[in-house]
Amino acid sequence: MPRWESDAQGRLERAALELFETQGFERTTVAQIAGAAGLTERSFYRYFPDKREVLFAGSELEAHLVARVETAAPDLMPFEVLLTALGTADEVFRSREFLLRRVKVIAANPALAERDLIKLADVAGALARALERRGVEPGEARFIADVVIAIARRATSRWLADPAATLSELIAQAAAELREAVTP
Amino acid sequence: MPRWESDAQGRLERAALELFETQGFERTTVAQIAGAAGLTERSFYRYFPDKREVLFAGSELEAHLVARVETAAPDLMPFEVLLTALGTADEVFRSREFLLRRVKVIAANPALAERDLIKLADVAGALARALERRGVEPGEARFIADVVIAIARRATSRWLADPAATLSELIAQAAAELREAVTP
Repeated sequence: MPRWESDAQGRLERAALELFETQGFERTTVAQIAGAAGLTERSFYRYFPDKREVLFAGSELEAHLVARVETAAPDLMPFEVLLTALGTADEVFRSREFLLRRVKVIAANPALAERDLIKLADVAGALARALERRGVEPGEARFIADVVIAIARRATSRWLADPAATLSELIAQAAAELREAVTP
Repeated sequence: MPRWESDAQGRLERAALELFETQGFERTTVAQIAGAAGLTERSFYRYFPDKREVLFAGSELEAHLVARVETAAPDLMPFEVLLTALGTADEVFRSREFLLRRVKVIAANPALAERDLIKLADVAGALARALERRGVEPGEARFIADVVIAIARRATSRWLADPAATLSELIAQAAAELREAVTP
């Protein structure tokens, strides 16, 4: 993607977040977002199907994680494959400041919170299918993907609050907590 | 709730499921569901806010699980508290035959599938808050609730397919699988 295109998407994302924060998600229109980003409504729709999707930028995260699973060492256990992939998610993250503001906007709006859940479930489904392609039984693949998504949620909320730690370290920490919690 | 009221709710649930199966969720109206159950539209709305909610009967499961967490032995670890509670979920389940048909209808309709996800996240949130009331730190409580919901999904799909095993046994089996998966 040429530099200016990628920049247009970023401008739309930042303009939308700013408008959602100041006047609320419901009251914000696509025309306002496009205008604040210095673009036309028509340009907006080249990047996003609607205003809700601006905060859930495409399938970048999903595609990144699936690619990592597909290139993981063949002898790695399914759980480790997903943990290692998730530990690199920050390579496609927006800035921490953007993400912190995004979390607050999403938490304040039920329609956005529902969309966030659905996106996360889509990622879990994509990871499960990627494990299946490595020979993991479908039920087990989905189970491991669901557990790893829980680990990623735990690690990401800490990562947002703590600039000193890497996502990969926090994923390992949450996995260690899980190990301890499930050991009788 | 008097016997006849409870029966009216069951009749609406069965009538809705039947109509969703035969003519699809989108094409089914509240008037048709009420009519098939021998009730008025007005009666329908005494039980459910809309046709989508008929397959997600109130907060019975959530209330049941939260009550179990609240009466769990004080010295039980959070993970065990939730596993034990989930193992009794079949006490409020509909019949296996109804649930198997329900799973198929939900899987076939994106709006229902999204609602199912959101309901499950609501249950996870309620379980996390119940753990917090036992003194568990909020982030840890949500993490444990998310993991236990993953275990419950794994166990419930097996329970639906296998009439010989109890839900409680299958929960224990999935927990054992998790233990094995996370042990390096």
